[in-house]
Amino acid sequence: MAKKILLDELQKFSEEALVKAGVSPENAAMAAEVLITTDTFGVVTHGTRNLYPYILKMEAGGLDAKAEPTVVCEGPAFAVLNGNKALGMVSGCKAMKLAIEKAKQVGIAYVGVKNSCHFGAAGYYANLAAKEGMIGLSMSNADPVIAVPNGRKKAIGTNPFAFAAPLGNGKSIFLDIALSNVAALKVIMAKEKGQAIPNTWLVDEEGLPTTDAEKFPAHASLQPMAAHKGYGLAILVELLSSVVTGAGMLSEIASWNLDLSSVNNAGHAFIAIDVSKMMPIEQFTTRINQMAEELKNGPKAKGADAIYLPGEMEWGRRDKALETGTLELTDAMADSLMNLAKHLGIELNIRN
Amino acid sequence: MAKKILLDELQKFSEEALVKAGVSPENAAMAAEVLITTDTFGVVTHGTRNLYPYILKMEAGGLDAKAEPTVVCEGPAFAVLNGNKALGMVSGCKAMKLAIEKAKQVGIAYVGVKNSCHFGAAGYYANLAAKEGMIGLSMSNADPVIAVPNGRKKAIGTNPFAFAAPLGNGKSIFLDIALSNVAALKVIMAKEKGQAIPNTWLVDEEGLPTTDAEKFPAHASLQPMAAHKGYGLAILVELLSSVVTGAGMLSEIASWNLDLSSVNNAGHAFIAIDVSKMMPIEQFTTRINQMAEELKNGPKAKGADAIYLPGEMEWGRRDKALETGTLELTDAMADSLMNLAKHLGIELNIRN
Repeated sequence: MAKKILLDELQKFSEEALVKAGVSPENAAMAAEVLITTDTFGVVTHGTRNLYPYILKMEAGGLDAKAEPTVVCEGPAFAVLNGNKALGMVSGCKAMKLAIEKAKQVGIAYVGVKNSCHFGAAGYYANLAAKEGMIGLSMSNADPVIAVPNGRKKAIGTNPFAFAAPLGNGKSIFLDIALSNVAALKVIMAKEKGQAIPNTWLVDEEGLPTTDAEKFPAHASLQPMAAHKGYGLAILVELLSSVVTGAGMLSEIASWNLDLSSVNNAGHAFIAIDVSKMMPIEQFTTRINQMAEELKNGPKAKGADAIYLPGEMEWGRRDKALETGTLELTDAMADSLMNLAKHLGIELNIRN
Repeated sequence: MAKKILLDELQKFSEEALVKAGVSPENAAMAAEVLITTDTFGVVTHGTRNLYPYILKMEAGGLDAKAEPTVVCEGPAFAVLNGNKALGMVSGCKAMKLAIEKAKQVGIAYVGVKNSCHFGAAGYYANLAAKEGMIGLSMSNADPVIAVPNGRKKAIGTNPFAFAAPLGNGKSIFLDIALSNVAALKVIMAKEKGQAIPNTWLVDEEGLPTTDAEKFPAHASLQPMAAHKGYGLAILVELLSSVVTGAGMLSEIASWNLDLSSVNNAGHAFIAIDVSKMMPIEQFTTRINQMAEELKNGPKAKGADAIYLPGEMEWGRRDKALETGTLELTDAMADSLMNLAKHLGIELNIRN
C-alpha cells in the first residue's frame, strides 16, 4: 500500500525543518508552500523530496539559511535581485511578487535574480502571476547536462521554462518544461530497468546518438529538445536568467545537490504581464476559455481518451490531493523525508 | 547557373511594386527591407518570394495597401495596435519600434497587434531590438496546421517564435523557429521527391504518426515540436499574439495565401528588453561573448566541423550577400518575382 502524508502535517513538518535549519518562519512557510504545491501537481521530483538536500546544502555552506534577497537595481518595469545565497524558492517567490507588483503599474515587468540556487519547479512562480490574473513566465539556468548540436560534452543546463495564464476559475493553462528532449530522470529510470532508450535522448562521449542509458550521466549527455530549437531556447533562458543578471553562466554552475558546499549562483528570470491593461479581464477570460474549449473539443486521435490543456493533468492531481487533504508518497519521497526527520530530530507522521 | 539579382535592384523593384499596389513609399521601403533582409539570411521561403501573393491579396481585398496601424491602448510598458489590415511587415516594424521606444524608458515593453496578416520571418523584428542593444522577442499566430497531442485535425498554427540578443559587433545570437517538429515546406519537398519521412513529422487523419508525405496537407497534419512541449509553447504564442490582442484565434485564422480575399486577422506579439538598464552594456557585451565563446569552443562531436550559435549561419549568408551586393535566387523566387513584374508591368533585372 502506498505511503501517505496529510498535507497539513507535511506543511508543518517542512516549515519546522527549515526553521530548525535557520530559515525565518516567514520564508520557511513560503518555501514549504512552493515544494508542497509542486508535489500536489505530481511533479514530485521537484517537491519536498529535495528538502533534505536543501538543508544539507545549508549545513555545508552552499546556501545561507538566514539570507534575504536584496535589490541590485530597479525601475518601473524591471529589477535585478541578488539572492545572497538564499533558498531559490525564497528568491523566486519574492522576485515574481515584485514583477507582479510592477506589472500592475505599467503592464509588463521583468525581474531577474543572481546568486541563487535550484528553485524547485518553474511552474509554481508562473502560477503566482496567473493567480493575480496575469500571464507569468519563469525560467532558470542550471548546471550543464545538455550537449549542444555538433558538441560532445555537457555544455548547457536543461534550463527549465514555464508559463501560466489564468482561466478565471482559480486554475490556469500552464506548461513547465526542461529544454532537453527528455528529463534526466527518465534516462535514469530506463537505466535502472536495464531498458534501451530511443536514440534521441542521449549523445555519447563522441557526441553521437546512443541507445545505451548505462552511459548516463558519466559518459553521455542529454540531447536538446528538438535539436537546434531546444538549444536556441536554452540560450534564451541563459540570457535572461544569467547573462543579464550577473549569475553564473554555463560551466560556472555546479550541480546544486552533488556539490553541496559550493555556492550555486544560478540565475532566474520572471516576467509578469497584466492582461487587464490590454483588455477587460472578463473579455480575456472569455477569450482564453474559447481557445481552451476549441482545443479540447477538437476531434480525437484513434484510441485517445481526451485532449488535455497544458497543466490540466497537474490541476487534476492537485484537486485530488486537496480533496483528500493527503499526498501519496513515492518510496524516494518517503525515504528522503524520513531521513530528514531523523537528521533534525523532529517528528514526521507518514501513514501506510 | 544560378539566377541572381543585385540587392539594390531588388530593393528598388520591391518598393516600386508595393507603391504601384497602393502602399506609401515609406511603408513600401520598410516592408521591402524586411523581406530582403530575410532573403539574405537564407530564409527564402519568407522573403521577396511572397511579394507577389501579398500584392494579389491587396488586389483581392484581404489586405489594405493604404492602411496604417493605429494604437488601441497603451501604457508605459505596453501597447496594443490594430493593424487595420495593413501589410504584416508594416505593423510588425511599427509595433517592435514602439516596444523598443517604451523599453528605453522603463526596461521592458510588450506590444501586441491584432487585425494583421503574415509578417514574414519573426526573426527580423527580434533583430530590430538587437540592433538597439536590446533583447527582442517576436511571435505570431497563424492558420492551424499542427495537430495537438491526442488530436487528429489541424488545430493550431506553427506559431513562429524568435528571439535576438546583440553581440556588440552589429550581429546577434538569434533563433527563429516554427513550433512544429519540421516546417511544412520540408514535408512538401519530401513529397515532391517521393521520399518517405520520419514518423515524427506528420499524423494522418486518425491522428496516428505516418511516414507518407503524400497525405500532406489534405489528409495529414504537422506534429508539434517535441510533442506536448511544442504544443504548450504554441499556446503561449497564441495567448500573447491573439488572445490578449483581440486578433483571430486558432480556426478563426485562414491561410493568408490560399484564401486571398479573406482578411487574415492574425496577431503578433513583440517584447523588447533594454539590458543596459540591468547592467552597463559593455558588461553585457562581455558576458554574452563569454557565453558564446564557451559554447563555440566546446569539444566537437565526431565528424562535426564546428559548433554554431543560433543565427550564426544566417549572419554568414547575409555577409556574403552584402559583400557581393547580390542575392542568389532559387527558381521559385525568380519565377515569383518575374510573374509579379509581368503582372504589374514593371522592369526586373534577373541575371544568370
